[in-house]
Amino acid sequence: MIAYARNGHTDKFGIPRQSREESPIVTRIVFEPEYRIPEALRGIEGYSHLWLIWGFHDVEIKNEKLKIKNSKEWSPTVRPPRLGGNKRMGVFATRSPFRPNPIGLSSVKLIGIQPSAVSHQLELLVSGADVLDGTPIYDIKPYLSFSDSHEEAKNGFADETKDYHLAVDWGLSKVSEEWKRDVTYILSQDPRPAYQDDPSREYKLDYQGYTITFIVDRQTVHVKKIVKI
Amino acid sequence: MIAYARNGHTDKFGIPRQSREESPIVTRIVFEPEYRIPEALRGIEGYSHLWLIWGFHDVEIKNEKLKIKNSKEWSPTVRPPRLGGNKRMGVFATRSPFRPNPIGLSSVKLIGIQPSAVSHQLELLVSGADVLDGTPIYDIKPYLSFSDSHEEAKNGFADETKDYHLAVDWGLSKVSEEWKRDVTYILSQDPRPAYQDDPSREYKLDYQGYTITFIVDRQTVHVKKIVKI
Repeated sequence: MIAYARNGHTDKFGIPRQSREESPIVTRIVFEPEYRIPEALRGIEGYSHLWLIWGFHDVEIKNEKLKIKNSKEWSPTVRPPRLGGNKRMGVFATRSPFRPNPIGLSSVKLIGIQPSAVSHQLELLVSGADVLDGTPIYDIKPYLSFSDSHEEAKNGFADETKDYHLAVDWGLSKVSEEWKRDVTYILSQDPRPAYQDDPSREYKLDYQGYTITFIVDRQTVHVKKIVKI
Repeated sequence: MIAYARNGHTDKFGIPRQSREESPIVTRIVFEPEYRIPEALRGIEGYSHLWLIWGFHDVEIKNEKLKIKNSKEWSPTVRPPRLGGNKRMGVFATRSPFRPNPIGLSSVKLIGIQPSAVSHQLELLVSGADVLDGTPIYDIKPYLSFSDSHEEAKNGFADETKDYHLAVDWGLSKVSEEWKRDVTYILSQDPRPAYQDDPSREYKLDYQGYTITFIVDRQTVHVKKIVKI
């Protein structure tokens, strides 16, 4: 672990799932004391995008060493939420967290670098990181369009659902613009654990210290309540 | 470790370094006994590209668990060979193997899946894997163009050298077409440890059981000798 992620994603169901639209949510990549070395980032400011390699939450960190539990929870097939949660696909044909080695991969946009002489902190600010608050980061690499970008790639069954998103009806809720933008994005990505067709069923989502209660009627999320945790 | 890589890259200097041109070299991803489960690949045939997450060679594998040595060899800055080997860049701004967590990342083209009932093997055939023969593979993920492809990404200092390659003069060497195609690709990527300007200096490269001796005169590699190891 070289760093950890800090953002408002305290609820795993709120994490966008390999979306076509880029998340507006800003994540701080906070370097661990041993890696607070500005020279290790020399030249990174010339890159617009980075790769983060990180650990899903059944990952164990000991003595600054990366040690991943040989999770017995993995199964050769998983049910991608985007396919409605009832179709099984091979785990290596999905980005599911329930994998033999629970390593995550995200391309993110580099927004800023924040060295601070006062706090001895060193942080990268990125957007588009689909990671939970507190996620351990193992590696950061530059995104190289000439080797990493394959516009023409065939996306298998993911192509069927890549444009899937919901409309969001905020009703009479009064919230700040930035918070609303972030949560609108999260809700539009459908944070339900699986798709159900019951428009009266209430779901809850935590984001940045608030619990949002919502229902989903066909293709629209209706926000019912926002309560400070 | 879920699998290991099998290819002709027995010499680390012959590994292409994040090239713009796609490597023609085929790598077999051979699943470990515990992971020889065809269902774990269900749906993968619909994807044209995959991600491999793998270990650089100072990685230790024990009891089917992923355990990465906390290498003391990493330095905050490295000298990218593509910049001539004399300019220092931050390790997180490069794809150098000498990183705090020596994890590698490659996008590859999926060529085929080879289950074999006779040998109880399970293999993926891919091209474009810039990995050594025997490399441990930790994870395989589908490449999703809508979230992973950023054609417009700015490539920092890597942009200066992304088109760099050498011409290859085979002289009178008699070799098979396929072998020649692979080695031409490797030599064109400049497999010298660092750039030197001495056209009389001989370099050696091992590939698929042969040692190739060559010199480099300006932008051309001249093959001098091919000897079976």
